[in-house]
Amino acid sequence: MKFLVINGPNLNLLGVRDKSHYGALTLSDIERIITKEFSDDRFEFFQSNFEGEIVSIIQKSEDYFDGIIINPGGYSHTSVAIRDALEICKIPVIEVHLSNLARREDFRKTSITASVIEGYISGFKENSYLAAVYLLKKRLSL
Amino acid sequence: MKFLVINGPNLNLLGVRDKSHYGALTLSDIERIITKEFSDDRFEFFQSNFEGEIVSIIQKSEDYFDGIIINPGGYSHTSVAIRDALEICKIPVIEVHLSNLARREDFRKTSITASVIEGYISGFKENSYLAAVYLLKKRLSL
Amino acid sequence: MKFLVINGPNLNLLGVRDKSHYGALTLSDIERIITKEFSDDRFEFFQSNFEGEIVSIIQKSEDYFDGIIINPGGYSHTSVAIRDALEICKIPVIEVHLSNLARREDFRKTSITASVIEGYISGFKENSYLAAVYLLKKRLSL
Amino acid sequence: MKFLVINGPNLNLLGVRDKSHYGALTLSDIERIITKEFSDDRFEFFQSNFEGEIVSIIQKSEDYFDGIIINPGGYSHTSVAIRDALEICKIPVIEVHLSNLARREDFRKTSITASVIEGYISGFKENSYLAAVYLLKKRLSL
Amino acid sequence: MKFLVINGPNLNLLGVRDKSHYGALTLSDIERIITKEFSDDRFEFFQSNFEGEIVSIIQKSEDYFDGIIINPGGYSHTSVAIRDALEICKIPVIEVHLSNLARREDFRKTSITASVIEGYISGFKENSYLAAVYLLKKRLSL
Amino acid sequence: MKFLVINGPNLNLLGVRDKSHYGALTLSDIERIITKEFSDDRFEFFQSNFEGEIVSIIQKSEDYFDGIIINPGGYSHTSVAIRDALEICKIPVIEVHLSNLARREDFRKTSITASVIEGYISGFKENSYLAAVYLLKKRLSL
Amino acid sequence: MKFLVINGPNLNLLGVRDKSHYGALTLSDIERIITKEFSDDRFEFFQSNFEGEIVSIIQKSEDYFDGIIINPGGYSHTSVAIRDALEICKIPVIEVHLSNLARREDFRKTSITASVIEGYISGFKENSYLAAVYLLKKRLSL
Amino acid sequence: MKFLVINGPNLNLLGVRDKSHYGALTLSDIERIITKEFSDDRFEFFQSNFEGEIVSIIQKSEDYFDGIIINPGGYSHTSVAIRDALEICKIPVIEVHLSNLARREDFRKTSITASVIEGYISGFKENSYLAAVYLLKKRLSL
Amino acid sequence: MKFLVINGPNLNLLGVRDKSHYGALTLSDIERIITKEFSDDRFEFFQSNFEGEIVSIIQKSEDYFDGIIINPGGYSHTSVAIRDALEICKIPVIEVHLSNLARREDFRKTSITASVIEGYISGFKENSYLAAVYLLKKRLSL
Amino acid sequence: MKFLVINGPNLNLLGVRDKSHYGALTLSDIERIITKEFSDDRFEFFQSNFEGEIVSIIQKSEDYFDGIIINPGGYSHTSVAIRDALEICKIPVIEVHLSNLARREDFRKTSITASVIEGYISGFKENSYLAAVYLLKKRLSL
Amino acid sequence: MKFLVINGPNLNLLGVRDKSHYGALTLSDIERIITKEFSDDRFEFFQSNFEGEIVSIIQKSEDYFDGIIINPGGYSHTSVAIRDALEICKIPVIEVHLSNLARREDFRKTSITASVIEGYISGFKENSYLAAVYLLKKRLSL
Amino acid sequence: MKFLVINGPNLNLLGVRDKSHYGALTLSDIERIITKEFSDDRFEFFQSNFEGEIVSIIQKSEDYFDGIIINPGGYSHTSVAIRDALEICKIPVIEVHLSNLARREDFRKTSITASVIEGYISGFKENSYLAAVYLLKKRLSL
Repeated sequence: MKFLVINGPNLNLLGVRDKSHYGALTLSDIERIITKEFSDDRFEFFQSNFEGEIVSIIQKSEDYFDGIIINPGGYSHTSVAIRDALEICKIPVIEVHLSNLARREDFRKTSITASVIEGYISGFKENSYLAAVYLLKKRLSL
Repeated sequence: MKFLVINGPNLNLLGVRDKSHYGALTLSDIERIITKEFSDDRFEFFQSNFEGEIVSIIQKSEDYFDGIIINPGGYSHTSVAIRDALEICKIPVIEVHLSNLARREDFRKTSITASVIEGYISGFKENSYLAAVYLLKKRLSL
Repeated sequence: MKFLVINGPNLNLLGVRDKSHYGALTLSDIERIITKEFSDDRFEFFQSNFEGEIVSIIQKSEDYFDGIIINPGGYSHTSVAIRDALEICKIPVIEVHLSNLARREDFRKTSITASVIEGYISGFKENSYLAAVYLLKKRLSL
Repeated sequence: MKFLVINGPNLNLLGVRDKSHYGALTLSDIERIITKEFSDDRFEFFQSNFEGEIVSIIQKSEDYFDGIIINPGGYSHTSVAIRDALEICKIPVIEVHLSNLARREDFRKTSITASVIEGYISGFKENSYLAAVYLLKKRLSL
Repeated sequence: MKFLVINGPNLNLLGVRDKSHYGALTLSDIERIITKEFSDDRFEFFQSNFEGEIVSIIQKSEDYFDGIIINPGGYSHTSVAIRDALEICKIPVIEVHLSNLARREDFRKTSITASVIEGYISGFKENSYLAAVYLLKKRLSL
Repeated sequence: MKFLVINGPNLNLLGVRDKSHYGALTLSDIERIITKEFSDDRFEFFQSNFEGEIVSIIQKSEDYFDGIIINPGGYSHTSVAIRDALEICKIPVIEVHLSNLARREDFRKTSITASVIEGYISGFKENSYLAAVYLLKKRLSL
Repeated sequence: MKFLVINGPNLNLLGVRDKSHYGALTLSDIERIITKEFSDDRFEFFQSNFEGEIVSIIQKSEDYFDGIIINPGGYSHTSVAIRDALEICKIPVIEVHLSNLARREDFRKTSITASVIEGYISGFKENSYLAAVYLLKKRLSL
Repeated sequence: MKFLVINGPNLNLLGVRDKSHYGALTLSDIERIITKEFSDDRFEFFQSNFEGEIVSIIQKSEDYFDGIIINPGGYSHTSVAIRDALEICKIPVIEVHLSNLARREDFRKTSITASVIEGYISGFKENSYLAAVYLLKKRLSL
Repeated sequence: MKFLVINGPNLNLLGVRDKSHYGALTLSDIERIITKEFSDDRFEFFQSNFEGEIVSIIQKSEDYFDGIIINPGGYSHTSVAIRDALEICKIPVIEVHLSNLARREDFRKTSITASVIEGYISGFKENSYLAAVYLLKKRLSL
Repeated sequence: MKFLVINGPNLNLLGVRDKSHYGALTLSDIERIITKEFSDDRFEFFQSNFEGEIVSIIQKSEDYFDGIIINPGGYSHTSVAIRDALEICKIPVIEVHLSNLARREDFRKTSITASVIEGYISGFKENSYLAAVYLLKKRLSL
Repeated sequence: MKFLVINGPNLNLLGVRDKSHYGALTLSDIERIITKEFSDDRFEFFQSNFEGEIVSIIQKSEDYFDGIIINPGGYSHTSVAIRDALEICKIPVIEVHLSNLARREDFRKTSITASVIEGYISGFKENSYLAAVYLLKKRLSL
Repeated sequence: MKFLVINGPNLNLLGVRDKSHYGALTLSDIERIITKEFSDDRFEFFQSNFEGEIVSIIQKSEDYFDGIIINPGGYSHTSVAIRDALEICKIPVIEVHLSNLARREDFRKTSITASVIEGYISGFKENSYLAAVYLLKKRLSL
């Protein structure tokens, strides 16, 4: 199976950012862990700080991938445009967050993107991504 | 007369998206209908998923066009930047929405862009655009 | 085609009221303009300051008209009764406002009547009515 | 000078209603007191339970009267239509309340009609009307 | 015993309106059912779309009736004037709603009229009226 | 027919509690009155101060009863768990309150349990229960 | 009769401050007008920018005066201390405002002091004080 | 490793409840799937409709288990008591929900229990539990 | 004199829980301190994690005790049922909190139970209980 | 030990003010009771209606006293300045209220001063002060 | 040029108060730094804990100074009286805060005084004052 | 020293936009003034209408610059992504606004970006930038 992993703004700086929330790994460390854990599957990794680029890649993804794992970063809480792109998308999508949003600032407690997808996972650092792949595979094997 | 028609994020996917809200036509179907209905006027069509690109094209439009028709899509509800660009713009602008926003989710009920322009039209699918051209021509013929 | 044009409270005073919001024309000027612009159609014009009269005429309209254009004036923001009458009504209804409600006082920003009809048009002074007729005719010719 | 005194819904029942808030006098007692206290002026008294009738009489009043005293009763808190009629009206208007609204239920604390007129008086039972006449005469004698 | 049954705006259209909420019976069907079920009592039925008319009939009712059953329709949620009339009224009043307001739109969840009367019944279609008569008779037989 | 009458916390103290709100009868007085008024039907009476016990008895009731009358007491305003149990339950349920909740403290004005059942009755002291049985029997005889 | 007239912060600058709201008269002009209009009564005038001083003078006033006229200025909207002092005070108190608070900024729309006194008058510039004296005399002559 | 799986109110009725939200499996089906998928680990399953019982079992769990998976059901949104018990608990806890809470009623969007634990998973029906075990094992193997 | 000391959910874990808020003593340490400090009085100590059990013991307490000291723990902020039980109870009740609620999370700032009793004490760790006994004795010796 | 007892605005009028809330004793009665009950300690009593004076005395107190008991009266709910002074102060401070704030007006339910001190006591009339001394002595004897 | 530097409540305690927010300098240290940095200008320094004194000095300042630098401390968030005094004042005023208010408690995020002056500077400890002088001089040299 | 000056959306149009808020200078005028006033320092100027571009340049800036001055324009009020980028950034950042945000529309009153940086300056037109450089140099020379 082939999955697209989308990371939103500032996630290219993982490993630098506040480690108590986000863990000590860099984004490529995480990509390596995913690839190794699920070595039978293929992954494409995409990171962008641009809301518009994320909208565009979601629009194109359903022809090339079996499912999407997205960490929209700060756009989870502000982007109606990404939300609308996800709503149109016909392949299953899972939203992940490294930190437990329920422990963070109030403005991070509402994800407007999560309401149009399969479900979401929050708080398990890099393992959030692994659980998302695990769940997408369960979902697709039905 | 020459008009700029700006379409925001995800409107490039019309015809695919939830048809009960947005109708069955694609964006180029709509462009064709506009051009045919108002064959004496010239239109330029612009679609972007990028908030910044929409800001930039609005900034440049007043030298080339007599009026703007804009469907800001999801950015209607979140973009102070587009709102500010529209406020600076000296040619008349009309906002259109395919669906009737008053029937939609709560976060779609407030348009922060509409408060700085001529007026807005909501709920008539592709005909919203036609009515906007009709109104811009009335307005400019004064 | 035959249309009913309903105007709510204080719209009988158009031309007197604050002209920057409502324009300089009287209600009969507007009626004349509508009749002239759409000379092939027939119009009945009804104005009332009474919420109950507006409810009653909406209830009776579907046997006599092809569509309704309504400017509920101040009742847009307060009348559940008119909203319920519009919801029951089986012919298409378009709501119009002379001023751009998005630029006005906060209590005018929510229209509780607009959520049960086709759509609404706001901000184009007398031209709001013309666009409404234009849209009703498009809608009915499908 | 000639004044119009408008009383809104349920004020025809004064003397019956909760006396701790509204006093023991009937509406005609109050009318007699006003006429006696200001015997040099002429007064017309109008009471209606209909929002639309109150809108209509305000619309017609400026040709016949020097000023208006209005107790909109329950409509103070709900009627955008009366508010708009008062805003259009060109003669001075004073709003009166028998009870002190600041001591009452929360929904009585906001008067949407008071924001478009000269000023308001609240809490002095029948004397609220007398003070309103006193103030209108001061205002008109400038 | 003699009861007044007041129905507010749009209830004259019962049987036409959304049947899942309001049931399939017309208002006269309901009147017939009430009269038949309680054939020992006398009923007067009054329907009006006018807020002011409902205020006026409540004001006059206490001399002629033993109790009131009122379905204020849309005015339940907006009318301080009807609320005040009910508060003054000295005979027992029961409010009824055909639909279960707790299942409806948010703006229907608050009844400002219910807070000044005996109690209310919501959700049992035509049977709401029957239970109201049943309760009024219990109440009056004390 | 066989009905389950569930009473929530503190209703075992009826007759002791504030009598202006709840009446002077004890819970067994009320049970006796119900049994006497509807002597053809069978009733089971259940009172508990435990949220979990109320959830459990609702879960088991549909095999043994034709309908449920529930007065959830304080749990009406706080228990999502009882609400969910009622939503799953397939026999008709009516919620009753002795006092008129619309006259009480603000936190008693919202019933989160009422939104998933047939309807509710509020304000008629012990007669609220009688009207609920009356309505359940009407409902079941269809 | 003897009255105390209390003016709160910044009212010593009347005549300087924004004239469209407050009028062109200075505080001593207003004092002169009051004294002249009601030449049979005696007045003491007190102005302070200190919340504590206003509390203290209210506490002492009931032994020396028949009534109080107070314009608490900015303290109307913030001072629980002055509110409490007024509530304890046993002689009648009337609150006045030069400007119509219903037309001003939102934070001026609530007067926490007004809820514990006779009533209030808002919007008639210097005449607000005259009407207050007029009303106090009516009130005391009962 | 040994895990405690706690299920809150109404989860004993899985398979009966609304299947579009909760899936078609019963609670013992889910228990069987968990045990089969992670056959090397031991699981204890506990279901209760009582808030107090859930508090009590959490308090005792840290001596007997390596981690907790909890689906608090309706108590997620109302129970400060369970939240406090989880906060005191020293072994890792993961919260799961069968349905995607972001798609549900507003009162289900806030989980007050989730803010004191590792993280939460929402929307993957029975697979939510599997992913929780998967994540607990990752977490404990560090 | 004889007092009942009720402790709500999780207070059985005192000494384990976050010590900066709750202090280092266990619940039996506190019970010992109370008994020692007030050796002339008799105390019964009751702890429960069950809302319903707390309601039940309050209902029975007035025959056996002179006063109640209650620390409702998490139920202070959520339980209308305990609030109602306390309201019915005829012996004096004092609410205590170990931590200063005004320094804690927002949802701990409102105690719905405190509004129906004598008063409350918050922030003095185990001494909060001692002060409550001290106050109950003062109160009862009047 | 030496304690400073600060009383805010209007507390100099105790014994006059509403006795159901504040008790029948005057402030010097209360001072006498405190001095008598704790005859081994020394007390200084300070009352002011001035926010600034209360700030100033708090600032100076830590050199002369072992602890502070403060009843900020109306300033509890409005004074960030007193709150800041208390936060800087290094000796223990306890806030007391004569009445149970949880039973009073909504604006009295939040104490912004209480969040920066040891704790607070509310509802026990003069005994609130005694309990505060009792608690300060416990606290200081550690 | 001559400037007035006003410091509100508790700023006389700088150097003692929480140093992470306010820095380690005392108020006279800051005054010395200002005087040294801008040795060509003259400064008058005024500190008061009294809202009324601050109102009074602002009222008198425009005859003696070219500009005002004000740090209203806790009064920024509560004082309508200081706000009104600043609004009347005809010389330029700049508001400064030592700490970055956007990082502080919610009640410090709104400055009601800042909305009537030139502008404000927040977060640069003693340098906030220097930047204010720098800006006032730029502004006055135009 | 070397500083990066970032300007957000629509600031490229300065000199065109509403001059009462933003002043008459163009962005290059302002850049020239900065360079001239601080001729010993080096500046790089960056303007973008793209949220993503601003995030990206902030991410790269700490290797090349000593400090950042940012005017995020409309993104101040909406961009969690820029906020997060600023939070990660290790060099000092100062936010500037040409207009006094406290005088503007409500949605401009909250800056979500300001809460993660040194401080902010608002209201001094082009001089806001100069004061920011002045403050950065003070800050860096420590």
